[in-house]
Amino acid sequence: MIRLGMIGFGTQGRKTYGKAFWEGQIEGAELVAICYTNPAQLAWVNENHPEIKTFDNADALYKSGEIDAVLIVTPHYDHPALAMQAMDAKIHVLIDKPAGVFTKDVREMNAKAAESDVVFAIMYNQRTNPIFRKMHDMIHGGELGALKRFSWIVTDWYRSQAYYNSGGWRATWKGEGGGVLINQCPHNLDLWQWILGMPKRITAFTHEGKWHDIEVEDDVTAYVEYENGATGVFITSTADCPGTNRFEVLGDLGKLVFENDKLIYTKLEMSEREFSKTNTEMFGRPNKETTEIDCTGDYPQHVGIINNFVKAIHGEESLIAKGEEGINGLTISNAIHLSGWLNTPIELPLDEDLFLAELKKRWK
Amino acid sequence: MIRLGMIGFGTQGRKTYGKAFWEGQIEGAELVAICYTNPAQLAWVNENHPEIKTFDNADALYKSGEIDAVLIVTPHYDHPALAMQAMDAKIHVLIDKPAGVFTKDVREMNAKAAESDVVFAIMYNQRTNPIFRKMHDMIHGGELGALKRFSWIVTDWYRSQAYYNSGGWRATWKGEGGGVLINQCPHNLDLWQWILGMPKRITAFTHEGKWHDIEVEDDVTAYVEYENGATGVFITSTADCPGTNRFEVLGDLGKLVFENDKLIYTKLEMSEREFSKTNTEMFGRPNKETTEIDCTGDYPQHVGIINNFVKAIHGEESLIAKGEEGINGLTISNAIHLSGWLNTPIELPLDEDLFLAELKKRWK
Repeated sequence: MIRLGMIGFGTQGRKTYGKAFWEGQIEGAELVAICYTNPAQLAWVNENHPEIKTFDNADALYKSGEIDAVLIVTPHYDHPALAMQAMDAKIHVLIDKPAGVFTKDVREMNAKAAESDVVFAIMYNQRTNPIFRKMHDMIHGGELGALKRFSWIVTDWYRSQAYYNSGGWRATWKGEGGGVLINQCPHNLDLWQWILGMPKRITAFTHEGKWHDIEVEDDVTAYVEYENGATGVFITSTADCPGTNRFEVLGDLGKLVFENDKLIYTKLEMSEREFSKTNTEMFGRPNKETTEIDCTGDYPQHVGIINNFVKAIHGEESLIAKGEEGINGLTISNAIHLSGWLNTPIELPLDEDLFLAELKKRWK
Repeated sequence: MIRLGMIGFGTQGRKTYGKAFWEGQIEGAELVAICYTNPAQLAWVNENHPEIKTFDNADALYKSGEIDAVLIVTPHYDHPALAMQAMDAKIHVLIDKPAGVFTKDVREMNAKAAESDVVFAIMYNQRTNPIFRKMHDMIHGGELGALKRFSWIVTDWYRSQAYYNSGGWRATWKGEGGGVLINQCPHNLDLWQWILGMPKRITAFTHEGKWHDIEVEDDVTAYVEYENGATGVFITSTADCPGTNRFEVLGDLGKLVFENDKLIYTKLEMSEREFSKTNTEMFGRPNKETTEIDCTGDYPQHVGIINNFVKAIHGEESLIAKGEEGINGLTISNAIHLSGWLNTPIELPLDEDLFLAELKKRWK
């Protein structure tokens, strides 16, 4: 039985992660320790879950010898340092998303993970969605052929001003390190890179405090280019209501469209590139067939990621989301910010020092 | 009975416009003259429609006294000059889309139209689509409130290389003045400005000869901003197969989505801007209701525009598409080209001299 500690015990820590353990949804591990800065919350734990040890600082938790693994659910900026400290203490690590706020920091964490023997995972629970798994598998299996275009309109992250007013750290450069990109979109940015790979150039239009009384961006449109010439558009906002969540991917052999919890697949009879060169009819088009892909199956979300992390520690499963992969979505996020700030296209690999310098300029 | 002449007698002229007259679909006008440069086609007219007079130059047609109105279906560059000549001869004018290739030329045509008493229309047949009429009427009627965002992915203009090989003038700067923007998209660009109005700034990514062996653009992504802060994305290509035609418009009071010949409307119970400021629940969202809008009704296409033109001449109807409005879609088209060429955002009103100078640089 793996002894797991959790650092951070806010809404997500209590209502999602704690609940998963207390309702018996996690196999092979038990929640034995909680570390948090808020005494009232720790008192609640002591009263309601007296079997759980409480700590008010991570150092004490890590040195206690009470835990084999840690779930880090703190503010974004702290993820890399707390993860590295755990790795030094030979404690397995599952960090919440995002991996961090700037990739320079996350790269150090990844380097330490590479030298360490611990299991290192990240809470990309949307990778357990059967639809995204199917998109990933079809595209990586070559069923769509070479990527030509994608668009993801993911504007269903609605937040009113009340949300932003609920915590002074929210939606500040110093407290969170960004807005919709860093708080709401890490899942989407990860799924994008997981399913389609990393682009090579990003041109973005970010609007800060456009719809809310906040410092950071709440409206983003990004245009990206891939090494092979494919292009894409990513659109997000926290003020669109009703929002949209539609992810379309076009390859040389067909198209996938995710919207309204359905996945629609159109398969061409032959490669479009080949057809274009060989067809002789003026308005000829390749034959095609459209079907809805069956994506029934479990969508175990956070519970699925925690169980997978535990099984990986037991050597029974490989990780759904390796911690090291967190840098990819964050790189896209950082590049979008940087492009918006500097009003210029940003090439990847990202100039991480430049990004950090620009981010720090915005700390108040 | 209005005596109508047609200049240009290619595929569209014969199979769409000529056919409409010969099948008795046009009321109040008869096709009495055809002007074309191809003797074989004129011989075909003489043999099959001996009642129609044939001309091999527009000048002779205009001076003949045989026509009251003219339908101009020539290559794009010639539209403004032929229209102005008709206006001078007091002949009513219906031009095919686009209005021309550069707005400087089209502005002169509009100025002449303003001084003239003739009826001046443009073949924006997609304005007769009940779905787009409904979108136009709802948005102009205020049902969506202030515009916040739109996206139009209109990539269902597939053309293989064979299409481009079918005429040496096709897809050249000198022959057509552009690619997908000037040949395939004029309807979409017009519908965009007709339904949503003109943006104030355009940043575009145009790719020339990306998918075909052609000089001009066959892949375009444009990001635009409106005076009120609304943003939009327009994506088009002639190489996407299967393509998409999805037009989404978000306003402060709701959303319209056109796709697959359906129009889906989501109406908010209250203004989102007002909700955001007054709501007190952390994850609160305005109540909403989604319905499919009934858009049954005639879609008379080109026949509808010709009949409307004739009725406007008879003083019985106002024009569905005034000729003068052709400059709007063309301005967007020109601005997208210019932004792509110069790799910079373009502000509207457009610098027309700059556009023309850049276009001319590309003539071979």
